Amino acid sequence: MPAKKDYNKLALQLHKKLKGKIEVTAKHSLKTKTDWSIMYTPGVGAVSSHLAKKPSEARSYTMKRNTVAVASDGSAVLGLGNIGPIAALPVMEGKAAIFKEMADIDAIPIVLDTQEPEEIIRVVKAIAPGFGGINLEDISAPKCFEIEERLKAELDIPVMHDDQHGTAIVVLAGLINATKVVEKKFTGLRVVVVGAGAAGRAITLLLIKAGISEIIVVDSKGAIYEGRPGLGGYKQELSAITNPHKLSGDVMRVVDGADVIIGVSGPGTIAQAHIENMSHQPIVFALANPIPEIMPKDAIRAGATVVATGRSDFPNQINNALAFPGVFRGALDRGVRAITDDMKLEAAIKIAGLIKKPTADNVIPPIMTPNLVKAVASTIKSEK
Amino acid sequence: MPAKKDYNKLALQLHKKLKGKIEVTAKHSLKTKTDWSIMYTPGVGAVSSHLAKKPSEARSYTMKRNTVAVASDGSAVLGLGNIGPIAALPVMEGKAAIFKEMADIDAIPIVLDTQEPEEIIRVVKAIAPGFGGINLEDISAPKCFEIEERLKAELDIPVMHDDQHGTAIVVLAGLINATKVVEKKFTGLRVVVVGAGAAGRAITLLLIKAGISEIIVVDSKGAIYEGRPGLGGYKQELSAITNPHKLSGDVMRVVDGADVIIGVSGPGTIAQAHIENMSHQPIVFALANPIPEIMPKDAIRAGATVVATGRSDFPNQINNALAFPGVFRGALDRGVRAITDDMKLEAAIKIAGLIKKPTADNVIPPIMTPNLVKAVASTIKSEK
Repeated sequence: MPAKKDYNKLALQLHKKLKGKIEVTAKHSLKTKTDWSIMYTPGVGAVSSHLAKKPSEARSYTMKRNTVAVASDGSAVLGLGNIGPIAALPVMEGKAAIFKEMADIDAIPIVLDTQEPEEIIRVVKAIAPGFGGINLEDISAPKCFEIEERLKAELDIPVMHDDQHGTAIVVLAGLINATKVVEKKFTGLRVVVVGAGAAGRAITLLLIKAGISEIIVVDSKGAIYEGRPGLGGYKQELSAITNPHKLSGDVMRVVDGADVIIGVSGPGTIAQAHIENMSHQPIVFALANPIPEIMPKDAIRAGATVVATGRSDFPNQINNALAFPGVFRGALDRGVRAITDDMKLEAAIKIAGLIKKPTADNVIPPIMTPNLVKAVASTIKSEK
Repeated sequence: MPAKKDYNKLALQLHKKLKGKIEVTAKHSLKTKTDWSIMYTPGVGAVSSHLAKKPSEARSYTMKRNTVAVASDGSAVLGLGNIGPIAALPVMEGKAAIFKEMADIDAIPIVLDTQEPEEIIRVVKAIAPGFGGINLEDISAPKCFEIEERLKAELDIPVMHDDQHGTAIVVLAGLINATKVVEKKFTGLRVVVVGAGAAGRAITLLLIKAGISEIIVVDSKGAIYEGRPGLGGYKQELSAITNPHKLSGDVMRVVDGADVIIGVSGPGTIAQAHIENMSHQPIVFALANPIPEIMPKDAIRAGATVVATGRSDFPNQINNALAFPGVFRGALDRGVRAITDDMKLEAAIKIAGLIKKPTADNVIPPIMTPNLVKAVASTIKSEK
C-alpha cells in the first residue's frame, strides 16, 4: 500500500487528469427524433403539465427520486479548517462518487460562496425542490447545528449533517462491538469525549440515546460541567445532560476510571498517561484525521484493548461511508422526511451486527462488506 | 413518426420509468483501497490544500472545468407559463441530457423555490463556485433581463439566458440563410417581430447587431414606437433603437412591405392576411411552441417563401440546441468569462454556414449535423 505521501501525489495526479471526478449522463439516449421528442420538447411538456397539477408526484417522474445535494461552505474541511468552497469541492466530488458507488445515489456537489448561517439556510432551501435529500458537509460548529435544525424544520426532505451524524452512527456501531470485546455492560460505560465540536456533540447525544448515562465532554478549557463559568450555547446544553457528577479539570483528571475515551479533537490530545489512568481494558477511539490523537501502537503500549481511528491503514476504521450511503438510500426509497435519532440508533446497531464475532482488531465492518448499504437502508423507515 | 399526442403519452411513460433522466457517475472507480485513498481521504486533502492556496486552479482539478448549472424558477416554462420549479424540473433534466449528448458537458438542473429576482440572483451567485457556467432557463420577462445582466456583471463565469440568446442565435442563423434563398440584401431587410418578451427582445438586439436597421417590435398593444403612451422599462429602451419611422398600429399595419415576420408570441397572432400584406417572397418565422403563430401550410398558401417554426415535424426547426451546447463548450474550453454579442453573431454566422446551399426547406441545419458543436464552440473565444 502506498505511503500517505504517495497518496497525496497520486491524488493530485488523478485529479489533474480527471478534471472533475463526477459526470452527469443521460439515462436514455438522444439518437432518434422520437428520443428528442420524448426526452425534451414537445413530449416533456406533458410531464411538466402533469407535475404542475400534481407536484407531489415529482418523485415518480424526476431526478428528485434519487438525488442528494452534498452542500458545503468549506468552513471545516477534513482537518484543514476553513479553506472555502473551491478548496472543498474535491471533497464533495469524492463524496458524490462514494454515494454512487455504494448506494447508486445521484449526488451533486454544491459549494457555497457564503459562510453566513442564515444565508446558507436560505440558499439550500431555495435549491431544494430538485433534490430528494440534503447532505450537509464540512460546515463548522456551532453554526452547523442551527443550519441543520432549521433546514430539518423547514424542508420536507431529509437533511443530515454527515460530520455529525454519520460519524456518530459509526462510532456507536464500533463502540457496541468494542464493548463486547472487553465484556463490559454497554449502558454502564463511563465515556470521555475529547473535543466538543460537531462530531463530539453528535457522538455524545447518540451515546446518550443509546443508554449511556455517564459521559464527560472535554473542550480546550477542560471538562464541561453544569455551571462552568462562561459556558453558553450548545456547550451549556451539553453540560445539562452530561457529566452527572460535575467533574472539572483536564483530560487526565476526568479520564480516571473511564472505560472509553473518544478523541474528536486533534493530534496530541490523548496521551499514554491518560490511557494508563483509565479503567481495565480501555477502549480508545482516536478519530482525528489524518493524524490521530494518539497513534494506535502508542495506545496499545499504554494498555488499550481496542483502538479505532479514522484511517484506513490501521484496524477499525471509523468511516462515515459505512453510514451515509445506506441512510440516504433508505430515506430516498421510503420517502422519509427526516432522519430521526431512533433511525440513527437502529443504523448503528445494524452496522455493529454485521460483525458476528467482534475482536479487538475487528469492531467495525470493512466498507466493502456485502449488503452493507442494504442493511443500513433497512433501518431508515417512517415511524408506524 | 408518432403524433404529438403519442409523444405526450410516450414521454409520460418514459419519465415514469426512468424516474429522473440524468444520473451522476464517478469517472474513476472506487474498488481498491488505493482508489478510495486518492478519490477521497486522505489523498483528496492534498488537492484541497493545493486549491486553498491556488483557488484559480479549480478548473484544473475539479468539476468546475466542465459543469454548467441549468437554473430555473419555473416562471416561464415552454408554452406552459408559470408552473413553478417542480414542474420545470423535467425540462431542465432534458436540457442536461442534451448538454451531455451534444457537447459532453456535465449540466446540473437547479430549480429554485423562489421567483424573486433579487433572491434568484443571490442564490445563483451563492452556488456558483462549483460551476464553470450558468445556463438560465425558462425565467419570465422582464425579470430575466435584470437577473442575467446582474449575474453577468457579478460572476466571473459565463452566464446565458438561453431562452433569449440561444433562440436569437438560431433565428439569426436561419434568417441569414433565408435571405440568401430570397436573394435579398440582409442589412436592407425590413423585419417585424411579433412578441416583445424575452426572445423577442433578444432577437431584435441580435438582428440590430447583425446590421439590420429597420425592425418593428409589436406587443399586445401594437407596434412599439418611441413616445408610445405608457411605455416603460425595456420596451422603452427597445423603442429607442427600433421602428425608425415611429410607425404605430397593429401587425396588419406595420407588416406592410416587410420582408420578414418573426412570431415569438402565441398561436393566431400571425394571419394569412399579414403575409399577403408583406413584400415579395416573405420570410415567416412562427416560433410559438407547440402551436406556431401560423401553421406552415397556411403561411405558404398566403405566399410565404421560407417558413421556419420551433417544431421538429416541419422543415426549418429553430432549435436552441443548435446553439447552447456549442456556446458553452467553447466557453468552458477557453475559460471565457462572458458570452458577448460578437460571439453570438459569430456563432449564428457559423451555424448558417453549415448549410452550403440553402433552400426554402433547408435554412437551418439539422441537430445531428456533424461537427455542429465544434463549429459553434470555435466562435466562442476571448477577445484578443
